[in-house]
Amino acid sequence: MLENLKKEVYKANMLLPKYNLVMFTWGNVSGIDRENDYVVIKPSGVEYEQLSPADMVVVDFKGHIIEGDLKPSSDTLTHIELYKAFPNIRGVVHTHSEWAVCFAQAGKDILAAGTTQGDYFYGSIPVTRKMRKEEIIEQYEKQTGSVIIETFNKRQIEPDQVPGVLVNDHGPFTWGDSPENAVYNSAVLEQVAKMTYHTMQINPDEIEMSRDLLDKHYLRKHGENAYYGQE
Amino acid sequence: MLENLKKEVYKANMLLPKYNLVMFTWGNVSGIDRENDYVVIKPSGVEYEQLSPADMVVVDFKGHIIEGDLKPSSDTLTHIELYKAFPNIRGVVHTHSEWAVCFAQAGKDILAAGTTQGDYFYGSIPVTRKMRKEEIIEQYEKQTGSVIIETFNKRQIEPDQVPGVLVNDHGPFTWGDSPENAVYNSAVLEQVAKMTYHTMQINPDEIEMSRDLLDKHYLRKHGENAYYGQE
Amino acid sequence: MLENLKKEVYKANMLLPKYNLVMFTWGNVSGIDRENDYVVIKPSGVEYEQLSPADMVVVDFKGHIIEGDLKPSSDTLTHIELYKAFPNIRGVVHTHSEWAVCFAQAGKDILAAGTTQGDYFYGSIPVTRKMRKEEIIEQYEKQTGSVIIETFNKRQIEPDQVPGVLVNDHGPFTWGDSPENAVYNSAVLEQVAKMTYHTMQINPDEIEMSRDLLDKHYLRKHGENAYYGQE
Amino acid sequence: MLENLKKEVYKANMLLPKYNLVMFTWGNVSGIDRENDYVVIKPSGVEYEQLSPADMVVVDFKGHIIEGDLKPSSDTLTHIELYKAFPNIRGVVHTHSEWAVCFAQAGKDILAAGTTQGDYFYGSIPVTRKMRKEEIIEQYEKQTGSVIIETFNKRQIEPDQVPGVLVNDHGPFTWGDSPENAVYNSAVLEQVAKMTYHTMQINPDEIEMSRDLLDKHYLRKHGENAYYGQE
Repeated sequence: MLENLKKEVYKANMLLPKYNLVMFTWGNVSGIDRENDYVVIKPSGVEYEQLSPADMVVVDFKGHIIEGDLKPSSDTLTHIELYKAFPNIRGVVHTHSEWAVCFAQAGKDILAAGTTQGDYFYGSIPVTRKMRKEEIIEQYEKQTGSVIIETFNKRQIEPDQVPGVLVNDHGPFTWGDSPENAVYNSAVLEQVAKMTYHTMQINPDEIEMSRDLLDKHYLRKHGENAYYGQE
Repeated sequence: MLENLKKEVYKANMLLPKYNLVMFTWGNVSGIDRENDYVVIKPSGVEYEQLSPADMVVVDFKGHIIEGDLKPSSDTLTHIELYKAFPNIRGVVHTHSEWAVCFAQAGKDILAAGTTQGDYFYGSIPVTRKMRKEEIIEQYEKQTGSVIIETFNKRQIEPDQVPGVLVNDHGPFTWGDSPENAVYNSAVLEQVAKMTYHTMQINPDEIEMSRDLLDKHYLRKHGENAYYGQE
Repeated sequence: MLENLKKEVYKANMLLPKYNLVMFTWGNVSGIDRENDYVVIKPSGVEYEQLSPADMVVVDFKGHIIEGDLKPSSDTLTHIELYKAFPNIRGVVHTHSEWAVCFAQAGKDILAAGTTQGDYFYGSIPVTRKMRKEEIIEQYEKQTGSVIIETFNKRQIEPDQVPGVLVNDHGPFTWGDSPENAVYNSAVLEQVAKMTYHTMQINPDEIEMSRDLLDKHYLRKHGENAYYGQE
Repeated sequence: MLENLKKEVYKANMLLPKYNLVMFTWGNVSGIDRENDYVVIKPSGVEYEQLSPADMVVVDFKGHIIEGDLKPSSDTLTHIELYKAFPNIRGVVHTHSEWAVCFAQAGKDILAAGTTQGDYFYGSIPVTRKMRKEEIIEQYEKQTGSVIIETFNKRQIEPDQVPGVLVNDHGPFTWGDSPENAVYNSAVLEQVAKMTYHTMQINPDEIEMSRDLLDKHYLRKHGENAYYGQE
């Protein structure tokens, strides 16, 4: 069942160690079959070197296992909330990549400091508010998704244009039009976090790029007038 | 004698270079046979590439060699103090891993800044007080163990819940329910040290996570209500 | 056509990942045939692992494709401006190497803090002014070249002696007497950016080296009295 | 001639890239034959991958080539000054390793912040004063040696106990009782520079370790009462 999607999700999971986005088992990638609203996700706590495509777990939108011998990632319900709220996305990634975590722990947005970020994120990468006690105690993983969605709604950020977020005191989630693309965005987020950090140390008064430059770089790669790449 | 434990301790020592926790010979792992109170430990000053399981040294609780052709690690008496005081631990690790050493040299706890730390350490990772002149001159390695134990007692920290410490102006010791698990905790300690450092630079006023979030993350992986992983 | 130059440009492009100067497709190298004013450059958005010499694109000084099946790098018109203004250069490199980008984003020159920089750059590596709205909207890539040239003219910097620049809020461009040499300068620029950054953190009041020391180091490797190396 | 020493010097040079102490050709190791006062050193500007033992150059105490087809390192006269002034040393290393260079550029000693440094350096690693104009213009490389020696004399530092120095605005030189040991000290110096840097950022008021702890660590590895390692 969903063999192709399982392979795709497996391959995307294996990119996490390749791009140095995970230590041990600290990350997971999922993909979605939009026809049936089935989510395919990495099993919980299994090391990357031991994974195979057949280990991927299929769950429905309630998080119930449809197929698979292993328990799905403990973050599964967060992934599902994102798939429900953001209709265009087809892959979700969660990691504890180190520079992204630093901003999450500091409770600070990753400001759009230059064109590297502007090529992929149409503005700052937001950090959520801290979660409340009752959200932490009850349905924590689902509530993690809710607080992400609330952030995008309240700040009127378009998830297709800013494909990532920092969960406060926790770490990054990213998404994309495929599991692989979601991992790509995760790698970009980590790299721009590192660069914005050092930019802030050199010149804390002068971090954000101009809106004009952001428009130019985001729009030359995305949307109908894009002219970057071979298509 | 104790061939299995020697292999286990050997393998755990070899994880130190794999996880980038050591330069040259600057680290050692031990394991314990709780039946006889025999400790198996890396020999002193031998490079990892030249180690074999047969090189592991067996000592008793006084540090006397029971078996082995080489001298045991110069830190052996510190390991023994920890095994005597912390009855549940079965492995101990000492390294000079760089981010942990920075906090040790600065004399600062690694505060629990986010869920990465909370998944493995139930709170801050403490730094000991500086050692006194007489403790340094007389029985230094044994006293290093004593000052660690004093830190946990005075601050009422449970060593099974916070499996690591920073010895002031020196470096980290970690422990676990096996030599391998102690190394795992050493790698986590190093990574959270790195991330807390940068969190402090971004936002020095907002470092620690909430108690609720710490409870959630520590307890979903440890204790009777744990639900992370495949067991 | 221009098979040797294509090979040279291909090889120089492949040095970018080798020297850790690029993530994904974020960099490009070109070379020039000064007889015909033909520029050979990496195609746009193609991954390094999939490149071959035959993929290199030949363009004229207007950016029109003379030979090649793929679209040239989106930065091609910037490269061309540099070749037109700096008559001695034969290779140009653009990357988003991380330390250089940090200075570009902070809008700060990389000051000549020590002899490592002085061995290759005869002074500070300048950052351009921010580009104006109309320069960003209209002919952005060509204007990027113009603002670089303006920087060297206004500040009376000799491009053969300072073979690199930071484009504000964007990243570095370097050049040299060959594509390979331009990459070499890109690697040096990245390394001195990293070292100057940390020098600034240790001692912000004492960054620049003396003019005498700069003269000594630059001139013992460059110019008629050079005595470094085997020639 | 001096085939064994050439091999030893060659092997020590090849450790520089292994320990990540050099980029390109930015480093050199020498060894000495104390019977004849002949120094064997890396040739100038040759890449490490292309070196062979036969390329090593033999020079006398005036820097004249006794044997070898290539020009010796441009830093040869600095090495010779050190061999003349420090009678017990048998190997000298110069690199531009990045953390050491940062302290050199900032003009700051690497304070003895913890036991990692104390295990190998009996105190702070000093930075020289800036060189004067006349020292830079005339016999620069020899004068570089002189200013190092002046630093040790004026500050009454014993070169056998502190086997390294930072030349102001330039970089580190280290030495040892063999070329290999000098490289080892170079690697230690780089690592402690990195750790002291971050210690300073965490807690600028509390950097240096106590004299008692320094004594303990240095003397348990060096001198007649040493008890570390297998001898």
